[in-house]
Amino acid sequence: MSIASLAPDYIRAIMAYQPGKPISELAREMGIAEESIVKLASNENPLGMSARARDAAITAIGEISRYPDGGAFALKKALCARFGVEPAQLVIGNGSNDILELASQAFLAPGLSAVYSRHAFAVYPLATNARGARGIEVAAKNFGHDLDAMAAAIEPQTRVVFIANPNNPTGTFVPGAELEAFLAKVPRHVLVVLDEAYTEYLAPEQRYDSIAWLARFPNLLVSRTFSKAYGLAGLRVGYAIAHPEVADLMNRVRQPFNVSSVALAAAEAALDDDEFLARSAEVNRRGMAQLVAAFRELGLEWIPSAGNFVTFKVGDAIGVNQALLRQGVIVRPIAAYGMPHWLRVSIGLPEENTRFIEALRQALA
Amino acid sequence: MSIASLAPDYIRAIMAYQPGKPISELAREMGIAEESIVKLASNENPLGMSARARDAAITAIGEISRYPDGGAFALKKALCARFGVEPAQLVIGNGSNDILELASQAFLAPGLSAVYSRHAFAVYPLATNARGARGIEVAAKNFGHDLDAMAAAIEPQTRVVFIANPNNPTGTFVPGAELEAFLAKVPRHVLVVLDEAYTEYLAPEQRYDSIAWLARFPNLLVSRTFSKAYGLAGLRVGYAIAHPEVADLMNRVRQPFNVSSVALAAAEAALDDDEFLARSAEVNRRGMAQLVAAFRELGLEWIPSAGNFVTFKVGDAIGVNQALLRQGVIVRPIAAYGMPHWLRVSIGLPEENTRFIEALRQALA
Repeated sequence: MSIASLAPDYIRAIMAYQPGKPISELAREMGIAEESIVKLASNENPLGMSARARDAAITAIGEISRYPDGGAFALKKALCARFGVEPAQLVIGNGSNDILELASQAFLAPGLSAVYSRHAFAVYPLATNARGARGIEVAAKNFGHDLDAMAAAIEPQTRVVFIANPNNPTGTFVPGAELEAFLAKVPRHVLVVLDEAYTEYLAPEQRYDSIAWLARFPNLLVSRTFSKAYGLAGLRVGYAIAHPEVADLMNRVRQPFNVSSVALAAAEAALDDDEFLARSAEVNRRGMAQLVAAFRELGLEWIPSAGNFVTFKVGDAIGVNQALLRQGVIVRPIAAYGMPHWLRVSIGLPEENTRFIEALRQALA
Repeated sequence: MSIASLAPDYIRAIMAYQPGKPISELAREMGIAEESIVKLASNENPLGMSARARDAAITAIGEISRYPDGGAFALKKALCARFGVEPAQLVIGNGSNDILELASQAFLAPGLSAVYSRHAFAVYPLATNARGARGIEVAAKNFGHDLDAMAAAIEPQTRVVFIANPNNPTGTFVPGAELEAFLAKVPRHVLVVLDEAYTEYLAPEQRYDSIAWLARFPNLLVSRTFSKAYGLAGLRVGYAIAHPEVADLMNRVRQPFNVSSVALAAAEAALDDDEFLARSAEVNRRGMAQLVAAFRELGLEWIPSAGNFVTFKVGDAIGVNQALLRQGVIVRPIAAYGMPHWLRVSIGLPEENTRFIEALRQALA
């Protein structure tokens, strides 16, 4: 009788998350030079990071033998100033992945359940299953969230609803007014985790103020990240804004030093670099137009996306993906999201998008 | 009925970990210049970090818009080369705190239990309680682990035993032969988490090869960190070496990008800097002698320590701690460890130790 065989059934049933292939791994596997590889697989910011964040990160390296400030005093102060909230409403996470995990740790357990959409972010079922809670997957509507069906799926044992807006990997977007109507319907015993990892990429006419809703909906949690538009994916830092009681419970289960001091310093410096954010959004808007024009020309179906990536249909996704990899282009197969005929590509710099489009043309030929 | 009131009872009962006071916080509170503060509260390396690690960290900053390698290929390769283990035996953690959490997530649940010692590291009860499992605290023997009593406390529902060697905050040490005899007694359905966060500080005659024991004890997990002797506390990186089945289950519940790319790169570079490790151990040995001589002269009781810190008895620990803080010296009160009359001080540089000793003399006067 081994210890592994005695782990709870729901732990032994978990399939680990499959991340995008790192550049170094493809280089090893294919014997290609790392410099020649284009990675458009993980929705990273092709501009890199804000210069302010880089400077702050390098300065923080000097003090790395000290533990980070587990209370994240300075970053919380900056977030409060930017969003008009109180420090007690904040949870700082090791990426927003950590925020999703902390919500599940604080509110889910065997006998309870969480509701999420089909084709939504893979961490929702993972974080639910890892707590021994039951996942209720709701059918998608046009590859996006069907909020009416999700509201109807809530049961008395439900404690968490996960919503990604925009959704990853499909890029679908639910307008603010529909989200607000959904919140008004959800019972107060259910935490609505609104995952806005890509919110900084929304077009001006799509924007909505979810943080203002917190005053009316104490069961709302807004989750954001520095990994996407802010370009700090490698450092791991995200945050939740929620009711102080919700934040308090999540902070109790949070690892006391879950975020590195380099990440705290870089995030604080990046937060108000609006010029960098605007530039990132503009590069994304143009890149999206470039890719969509190519899909149209190639006669490929794609899902209109509000994020920094777009999902398109190729039929033989395994074969096309292999053909892209052989040409040094990494995109993301999404069979694990129930979409075996589709691939997801992140928006890159113009020349990266061109490399991808040419490689795709070859792969399809 | 609020969502917070519906969180599981065991979550609502958790008291969050109390970290050492950051220098910046004391400076704010007392209006003291940060440069004049001596922090000996968190068992950090007073030498800072290896220059190799610094260089690697700064280089890694350049690629920070990319996600880290969630598989930690390069760091695992370096660990395998150093310790003669296989990549499948490794789990890389966001500090070894993360390793402790992952062990609890993979193996504990409501209805199960974990065994640990009184006066042992605070994260053991936290990680146990956060899973809804029952913590079995075993009375200490001379402030250290009573392995016979711990073996006797194991029940059929027990899945994890936590042992810190040396122990934090008491510094007590169990010789390798006694640990080996304990492992031979523990049933195979119980994971023994051997937390060796301070192992690099052991004197040559205290060393033992716990990694070699893995071949005989598939229920052993050796946990180590880069936060102490390696001086990378601010970056958050630690690791577990265990049976491949144990590591696999922990990797399934691990957040896919739990360790930053800066931490991965710095840890890899630090691992083989034996000169830095030797220097750190030597500074620690001399500092320990300096502090022990002072305790003897001041007539204070102390607990002989195998770590980079020492715990001493002052009676009115709250008052003495306040008097030290007013002089700009931060040590750690350990009332939360059931030791309200004791303080823990980390070994610093000679001049930091002197500042502490002088401040302590004042505080006691």
